[in-house]
Amino acid sequence: MDETVLLGHGSGGTMMKRIIDEVFFEAYGTTELRQGNDAADLPSPAPGERIAYSTDSFVVTPHFFPGGDIGRLAVCGTVNDVATSGAIPKYLSCGFILEEGFPMDDVRRICASMAQAAREAGVHIVTGDTKVVNRGHGDGIYINTSGMGFIPAGRHLGGETCQPGDRILVSGTLGDHGITIMSCREQLSFHADLESDAAPLNHMIERVLQAAPDTRCFRDPTRGGLASTLNELAEQSSVDMAIREDAIPVKDAVRGACEMLGYDVLQVANEGKMVCVVPADQADAALAALRSDEHGIDAALIGEVGASAQGQRSRVTLETSFGSSRVLDMLVGEQLPRIC
Amino acid sequence: MDETVLLGHGSGGTMMKRIIDEVFFEAYGTTELRQGNDAADLPSPAPGERIAYSTDSFVVTPHFFPGGDIGRLAVCGTVNDVATSGAIPKYLSCGFILEEGFPMDDVRRICASMAQAAREAGVHIVTGDTKVVNRGHGDGIYINTSGMGFIPAGRHLGGETCQPGDRILVSGTLGDHGITIMSCREQLSFHADLESDAAPLNHMIERVLQAAPDTRCFRDPTRGGLASTLNELAEQSSVDMAIREDAIPVKDAVRGACEMLGYDVLQVANEGKMVCVVPADQADAALAALRSDEHGIDAALIGEVGASAQGQRSRVTLETSFGSSRVLDMLVGEQLPRIC
Repeated sequence: MDETVLLGHGSGGTMMKRIIDEVFFEAYGTTELRQGNDAADLPSPAPGERIAYSTDSFVVTPHFFPGGDIGRLAVCGTVNDVATSGAIPKYLSCGFILEEGFPMDDVRRICASMAQAAREAGVHIVTGDTKVVNRGHGDGIYINTSGMGFIPAGRHLGGETCQPGDRILVSGTLGDHGITIMSCREQLSFHADLESDAAPLNHMIERVLQAAPDTRCFRDPTRGGLASTLNELAEQSSVDMAIREDAIPVKDAVRGACEMLGYDVLQVANEGKMVCVVPADQADAALAALRSDEHGIDAALIGEVGASAQGQRSRVTLETSFGSSRVLDMLVGEQLPRIC
Repeated sequence: MDETVLLGHGSGGTMMKRIIDEVFFEAYGTTELRQGNDAADLPSPAPGERIAYSTDSFVVTPHFFPGGDIGRLAVCGTVNDVATSGAIPKYLSCGFILEEGFPMDDVRRICASMAQAAREAGVHIVTGDTKVVNRGHGDGIYINTSGMGFIPAGRHLGGETCQPGDRILVSGTLGDHGITIMSCREQLSFHADLESDAAPLNHMIERVLQAAPDTRCFRDPTRGGLASTLNELAEQSSVDMAIREDAIPVKDAVRGACEMLGYDVLQVANEGKMVCVVPADQADAALAALRSDEHGIDAALIGEVGASAQGQRSRVTLETSFGSSRVLDMLVGEQLPRIC
């Protein structure tokens, strides 16, 4: 195990998995935490219902970028994590860590953006906290949100429920958020064509669940991108997954930026996209439901779940545009720090 | 309003009240947020029951100090905020913001301490998040926790329920935490006699509620100390409060340090103490219940609630040891930054 904290420990990839397994689970590995889903699924005092609970901290730089800002991310990120469980997100907490000297107008602008995103999602910020650290000891603003929602009786979604034959869908184009942040940071010229996809996806998820009630799971491919998300799901369910490169929606500007910069778009973060795994006979209904939502217009069926070979680790493979096939790994280390 | 963020905006005093009122409430002033209690009191899906929900970020330096560390604080602080509502705290979320280069052994030690505090409180850490920021852009480790608990049917505690004639109790000696942190930071010599009081107080609160079921409210006098807490409660209930200096328990070492350094012990932070307001006829029972708990041995009755004068703002007064009386104000600005 590494002796100090490295950027990769926050990457969403294998290094993050290591600090979670070897440090956090070692200290307090509750059953809920070990489930490995984006939201904990907890007993509720109401019979049949359950509570979904999740948290995320946001440290993105720059704080403002095309398509959003750190406040919008902080609301959408947690709303989406809660919604992946099939819950109706209801309440958010918000903890600010502000740096002495940060402009108050920026705080106002970020709060207004949080309020707007909360309205879009239909959630309420009900409790908060503010800490201020000395100049030079933070980075302007960090935001933590946690979120709570109620899972209706009878819904049991989770990354551990995928089965061979299931279909894999994504709700739209990949890489928009990560490449937007990177291009702002480096002030690259393709910047004008791009914006972050940050959006609350709870209403879209609800549409899918109405149309495809046996949906296995949702997960938002944030840090570590689609590649890491599919590897997580495959491992949780002990299955293989195969996706087709040609089927994966990617904007030209994003594809161009990735080629120029040497990024694998499948490892780039998204903040307004969902992966969902559905039984084959509900795939068409799920896809239509995704496409009927403003945040799912570019949704696509990209692959399917297979049985993993006896005694082998779960594997995710990509059938490339050239017809060859390669193993798609989780992100190792850190590609693009602080994109959320 | 100030143009930039200042340390005082995180103080727990009047400046923090200003940023909350003028920035946060302006953007998203939900009813629950405006209640001004330490935990939001929310409808639960179970009839009669309610959910308590709270959050806190922790930025204390040093990370380790006599009597605790940032991890113990992060669990106890949120458990205590949830418990002030009369809830049984159940679940915690935990978000880490780690700085690249922070020693992994320190992460382990902090996590072990969080696990220990969670065991003492009887709560479970069920969901988490880890972000890593570049070297020089954080301060080793910041921790956010949020907490959720269930409020049994029939319990309605809150800072707005104090009535003239009620008695004011504190659960033990004041100033231990703030002065311990300050003495570590400045490496002062009285340091050896002091330790932080950081502790989960939910079991103590439950004892009081069994003995004094009509208890009006609990609040932990953290940032801003007893003076700020009483001013908050007096304002919420539109009452006056009067306390007696002689009745307030303070350790000799803390009193000495405050005199030497010019601090008002009533404005110094505590992390393992509760203020509680109870009807006069249940004050003895509440005091006995506090004293029967390991964290309430030094509990004392320190004053009472009075009617506020017609048309006047709520006022908290201190009857000094010399027999005179002075108005006790909320902390203005920041006395001792980053004590939690």
